[in-house]
Amino acid sequence: MSEQKKVNVAVLGATGAVGQKMIETLEDRDFPVKELKLLSSSRSAGSKISFKGEEYTVEEAKPESFENVDIALFSAGGSISKKLAPEAVKRGALVIDNTSAYRMDPEVPLVVPEVNEEDIKENKGIIANPNCSTIQMVAALKPIDDKYGLKRVLVSTYQAVSGAGNDAVDEMNEQSRAMLDGKEYETNILPVKGDEKHFPIAFNALPQIDVFEEDGYTFEEKKMINETKKIMHMDKLPVSATCVRLPFAVSHAESVYVEIDKEAVSVSDFRKVISNGEGLTLQDNPSEQDYPTPLSAAGKKDVFVGRIRKDPDVDYGFHMWVVSDNLLKGAAWNSIQIAERVVTNNWL
Amino acid sequence: MSEQKKVNVAVLGATGAVGQKMIETLEDRDFPVKELKLLSSSRSAGSKISFKGEEYTVEEAKPESFENVDIALFSAGGSISKKLAPEAVKRGALVIDNTSAYRMDPEVPLVVPEVNEEDIKENKGIIANPNCSTIQMVAALKPIDDKYGLKRVLVSTYQAVSGAGNDAVDEMNEQSRAMLDGKEYETNILPVKGDEKHFPIAFNALPQIDVFEEDGYTFEEKKMINETKKIMHMDKLPVSATCVRLPFAVSHAESVYVEIDKEAVSVSDFRKVISNGEGLTLQDNPSEQDYPTPLSAAGKKDVFVGRIRKDPDVDYGFHMWVVSDNLLKGAAWNSIQIAERVVTNNWL
Repeated sequence: MSEQKKVNVAVLGATGAVGQKMIETLEDRDFPVKELKLLSSSRSAGSKISFKGEEYTVEEAKPESFENVDIALFSAGGSISKKLAPEAVKRGALVIDNTSAYRMDPEVPLVVPEVNEEDIKENKGIIANPNCSTIQMVAALKPIDDKYGLKRVLVSTYQAVSGAGNDAVDEMNEQSRAMLDGKEYETNILPVKGDEKHFPIAFNALPQIDVFEEDGYTFEEKKMINETKKIMHMDKLPVSATCVRLPFAVSHAESVYVEIDKEAVSVSDFRKVISNGEGLTLQDNPSEQDYPTPLSAAGKKDVFVGRIRKDPDVDYGFHMWVVSDNLLKGAAWNSIQIAERVVTNNWL
Repeated sequence: MSEQKKVNVAVLGATGAVGQKMIETLEDRDFPVKELKLLSSSRSAGSKISFKGEEYTVEEAKPESFENVDIALFSAGGSISKKLAPEAVKRGALVIDNTSAYRMDPEVPLVVPEVNEEDIKENKGIIANPNCSTIQMVAALKPIDDKYGLKRVLVSTYQAVSGAGNDAVDEMNEQSRAMLDGKEYETNILPVKGDEKHFPIAFNALPQIDVFEEDGYTFEEKKMINETKKIMHMDKLPVSATCVRLPFAVSHAESVYVEIDKEAVSVSDFRKVISNGEGLTLQDNPSEQDYPTPLSAAGKKDVFVGRIRKDPDVDYGFHMWVVSDNLLKGAAWNSIQIAERVVTNNWL
């Protein structure tokens, strides 16, 4: 980032998978941090984390922790956000919340900067960071809607284990090793830590992310459906989703099918629209076997789009394969991007 | 199987992933084998394989190998089928071919017994076994079409590595171990052995199965599209597919979206139709976290269906999650099923 007014930043959930990426991204982007405060639950307080060569001690998050904080990046779980976000706001901080606590609150803007940056201005102290799987999809949908008009979205996801936290990645690795060695293994975390049953993720696929709702959809699927409509300001857009957890650590992939409001669009025109989209990298050359994969997208900030092709029977239907690092664009980077826009536009 | 006229059976590709499952399934089903001949390429000839307590030596497949064979189960690759199937037919054998060599040949029936058993009678010496990912999908589509009429199918697959052979599974396991240990690994087989580039499958997802066609679809996707129409005798059915290889050894999973020719069908009625479908097991109870996974379906013959739910915006649209062992129903078991129907119905 270019030279800006410096701000006091707090990261809540600093020792978690996303919190760590937030701290790395603040450093990597040279975000204009005046003072940095790293916060966590009492369990992780006392941990040491380095930022720009200096060692910071993680402190237990309390309401008073947010005194003198300008921007507070929250990623410590929904119940903690519910408890502490109002306290931070009361003390004058702008909260950028990476949990599902406030995403569907009509008073809280839900923001992917490439899609609805202007919504940031509507905030009353809290800006919600969307769900990881939603962010990368709407980033790809935005230029399509701008150019052709979106009529319908159907998505099947291929989601990384780090979306369920560092513990889930550890469990996947331990299960993998045990299965390769023909040994016993434990299964305590996925699909949902607090749910009744647990199934192995190693060498498997789990068609459940988050808890089930009454209608048979999971909460993750509901997030994709509802958040997409909110971010894109398209309440009536038909969106449906199937969300699946797969045995890889980083990057979500998505098989996205769209119907557009225009006929006779060529694949090469569609590709051009994607390649000009903000925050998108077109990676789509079948003859060179060029397409994104979870491993190829890991550690990168962009949303990668490949496998673009037209439905053989439906002239206005297109497939794409959308891949992005779920901890970066899906979480930490999107939050920092929001913070950058706030600072750059003097919206604080 | 009940007591039948005994027949001479040959298995070509006896040492491969599918060939091994064919031999196991013949034994498991107590198929009325008079004499069994195990055949392979010269490279694998000489291997020993046991069947019903007796040890068999695998012989190199030659045209003369098929003398006195009643049913020849082929699973040694398309080019070998092209070369040897006519030789087997010339010598009076009925070939059940598990390669893509003859699947779209208008003279060759393409059969999933639960869907189009009667097509077996049209054979002129060769019956084709469909592609693994197609078989389990059409098994699930059949009762839906019978009851409601199918209008459209969209599928995103989650396919097991064993579909690319035993070598690919070995490579996945070696890559997994190396990645867990932070060591170097080799990448020589997937996505397509004979293709230019290779990518790691361990802790990754590869949106390429088989080679790319001119229009950007892979051959695997084309197989799902074209074979579905042929098996179901629905040339005009809109079908589109995205096929993805995932890091697990056995069972393909599929996120299948269908539009039916009837409105106001309830999820519970739809479930009833699936639970009554031949060869299908309904495994769908969200409140109990009950749904099929690749690990839960491995080693079983049925096609498992769960996660049935209605599109929130499209009253005639339904999702399902279809999982089956790709080496059994997707290959060996479907071939043996065809052979059983041939014998039971005296269609030899």
